[in-house]
Amino acid sequence: MFRPQIKVIDCTIRDGGLMNNHDFSDHFVRETYRALSEAGIDYMEIGYKNSRRLFSDKEFGKWKFCDDDHIRKITEGINSKTKISVMVDVGRVDIDDIGPKKDSPVDMIRVASYVKEIDKAIYLVNHFADKGYETTVNIMAISRALDNELTEAFEQLEKESKAKVIYVVDSFGSLYQETTEFLIKKAKGIIKSKEIGIHAHNNQQLAFCNTIEAIIHNANYVDGTIFGLGRAAGNCPLELLIGFLKNPKFDIRPILDLISKEFIPLSKRLEWGYVIPYAICGMLNEHPKAAMELRKGSKKENYREFYESVKGKDMD
Amino acid sequence: MFRPQIKVIDCTIRDGGLMNNHDFSDHFVRETYRALSEAGIDYMEIGYKNSRRLFSDKEFGKWKFCDDDHIRKITEGINSKTKISVMVDVGRVDIDDIGPKKDSPVDMIRVASYVKEIDKAIYLVNHFADKGYETTVNIMAISRALDNELTEAFEQLEKESKAKVIYVVDSFGSLYQETTEFLIKKAKGIIKSKEIGIHAHNNQQLAFCNTIEAIIHNANYVDGTIFGLGRAAGNCPLELLIGFLKNPKFDIRPILDLISKEFIPLSKRLEWGYVIPYAICGMLNEHPKAAMELRKGSKKENYREFYESVKGKDMD
Repeated sequence: MFRPQIKVIDCTIRDGGLMNNHDFSDHFVRETYRALSEAGIDYMEIGYKNSRRLFSDKEFGKWKFCDDDHIRKITEGINSKTKISVMVDVGRVDIDDIGPKKDSPVDMIRVASYVKEIDKAIYLVNHFADKGYETTVNIMAISRALDNELTEAFEQLEKESKAKVIYVVDSFGSLYQETTEFLIKKAKGIIKSKEIGIHAHNNQQLAFCNTIEAIIHNANYVDGTIFGLGRAAGNCPLELLIGFLKNPKFDIRPILDLISKEFIPLSKRLEWGYVIPYAICGMLNEHPKAAMELRKGSKKENYREFYESVKGKDMD
Repeated sequence: MFRPQIKVIDCTIRDGGLMNNHDFSDHFVRETYRALSEAGIDYMEIGYKNSRRLFSDKEFGKWKFCDDDHIRKITEGINSKTKISVMVDVGRVDIDDIGPKKDSPVDMIRVASYVKEIDKAIYLVNHFADKGYETTVNIMAISRALDNELTEAFEQLEKESKAKVIYVVDSFGSLYQETTEFLIKKAKGIIKSKEIGIHAHNNQQLAFCNTIEAIIHNANYVDGTIFGLGRAAGNCPLELLIGFLKNPKFDIRPILDLISKEFIPLSKRLEWGYVIPYAICGMLNEHPKAAMELRKGSKKENYREFYESVKGKDMD
């Protein structure tokens, strides 16, 4: 039996954008929106709301800024119940860039934050909630959080924030299902008035596994991306998630079509997924930055040296 | 803390052989044996003991037959504690091909069987045990087994067989961790005098997940393959498994080297891993045969049609 409370958020364009400077063509984004709409996916996260004072739109594509007009160009004319989400990073957003919900095609704003910046995240999320948006706080790099600090962050979020959902984010793809169980139970034990979400990375081929594990322990907001597209190893493949969820409102077929037509060609030009240096970062609980750098150079297949450099880092 | 009882069986050449008619070069097999030995892996499964009365060695490479002399050519001169395993399929082996253990480089014989052939498997495994080999029975396609028949098979194996290990084999890559937990607990509940093993396929990117899940529930024999090489979607990546297991006897670095040198080049010539038609078979609990056929033809990316054909099959 399915759990109707479960909501699926597709982050293909947002997390995938970290691999191409958010520079997807309108055609690609629109076909993604169309397929997600036909598949019955609840939300599509289309990019970041980053400040143009910090980032140049000469260097980055439009999905790093997500202007309302650009979003409207994607969605117009497509019959859809799929809501639009954007992400903001603590410290990288101009709150004045974001008008009231009633004037915007955006439905949900997700605030990405490290544990140590939780006060700033609460300020932002409450501000966006007051402007009429659905909101979430996504706690990044949770595999590095100290337990007592995480407890405090969860307590603050429960008491002080207007966020609808609090997300556990495995930024480094280093969680095993036992740790996911621990974190989701911990969140559920403290946060009673909000939903819990999971955003998993696939460095160790455990993004889908950890998402299922979170669902088992009553997380109701689950992130996926089409064909796993996302930073480095990517994310929980949306097509696997739909195959697992029993809700009859989901239809996998438009997603399969889109993978055939758009994602197989893309995968010839852009690398993501199960790549050994990303797996090494997952095992060693490290940010994939160094691995992404490695993959651009001539030592891209020099795994032993990379492993030893990552492992040695913490021993200095 | 690690569990010293856990044994790792590498099946790269045996399961990977299903993708190239068991026709690996001696160089490739020897380098694999060397790396596994250096990495401290407990067993290397090198191929099948198939009958030459049923299969021609013009059509298949030597690892479909695993003559003792061929094995010796691989292992000689390499300092190793890694034991050698071969697999036999019920109905495809000539028992007279297999001499006594004292004359053979083979340490372990694993008998692959469907639930319905369990009596034949017990006959074979007892025969090989009597010849001095370590033995296992690997119950294939367990995701299709009826619960009462599986109960009976486990009871028979416990009472009548001399096998050292009974394996749960997810041939179709369709188990989720909840079902793995159920099956391993079920096996442990009935089989008290033997160890339990897990052999997982990776159609839904859950092979590593299901292997961890089996370990959590006290399976001590776990299969992996280097870079996940194996039939269709392949298997639990050995490198991830070593990253997870805490036993200091394992060293991931020789495996990383081997992937760089041998498996990356191989992956340009041979397809395995996360391929949508294999994922579809996993979701729908189907043998990957049809998907492997599809991938050879011009409709290889026609996922929707393939999905509907597999789904429709059971509705006829």
